[in-house]
Amino acid sequence: MSASPTWSLHTQLQKDTIDIGDLPLSRVLVVKDAHYPWLMLVPRRADAIEIIDLDEVEQGQLMTEINRVGRALKEITKCDKLNIAALGNVVPQLHVHVIARRSSDAAWPRPVWGVMPPLAHDAGEVQAFMTELRRKIWLG
Amino acid sequence: MSASPTWSLHTQLQKDTIDIGDLPLSRVLVVKDAHYPWLMLVPRRADAIEIIDLDEVEQGQLMTEINRVGRALKEITKCDKLNIAALGNVVPQLHVHVIARRSSDAAWPRPVWGVMPPLAHDAGEVQAFMTELRRKIWLG
Repeated sequence: MSASPTWSLHTQLQKDTIDIGDLPLSRVLVVKDAHYPWLMLVPRRADAIEIIDLDEVEQGQLMTEINRVGRALKEITKCDKLNIAALGNVVPQLHVHVIARRSSDAAWPRPVWGVMPPLAHDAGEVQAFMTELRRKIWLG
Repeated sequence: MSASPTWSLHTQLQKDTIDIGDLPLSRVLVVKDAHYPWLMLVPRRADAIEIIDLDEVEQGQLMTEINRVGRALKEITKCDKLNIAALGNVVPQLHVHVIARRSSDAAWPRPVWGVMPPLAHDAGEVQAFMTELRRKIWLG
């Protein structure tokens, strides 16, 4: 699956994330907030806002990628719960949050959005996390 | 797809919802909060907590049901945005929220959880909504 000709990552998502790489459908990103191990999948389909804007094959592939990334994130973080969500009330471009939650984290048991101001990552730690994630979702 | 032998709806979800009916994998519910047209899909699989606990066929079916219910909800409500989420930090049984959001609703643009105390439905309105939804997701 190649990107739609006119697709590009929304500027707000560019600001808020670090690029990990591309799965067949989605770009995989880390959200710049060290409070939670927080990933995002952005299907490379121009003008997609809702999951229901994707066709059936793309929806199936999105679920496959959610599963692949969710499993990797859980294995790496040993988290208590995954939170998976497509909201998009602020940034319309379709994006799916995949967040590792711990019962000790800053927002638990609430959803993470809007609870805490983002916390900067330690550069070494986020690079090590991304390296491990890349290994698990492409080479695992 | 029949229910796992030991599956039953979590007691908290029983309290918070009205039963609409069963799709092949999931029970479809209305959340008792008139602030938002708010549905829930609960895969009838005992001990499923995460989407990644479902097997590949079940995951594909869950996406099919999210698509079917999401399309129907959008058609009925003419909403501005769908919010689709599997969180489960409070009630562990796997459940997927499918919520119709309007830029005029009580929580917009925030996610709905925890913002407003639930508002009781008008009985006639919720029955009419459920009738229309049933028609769209089974007979459409």
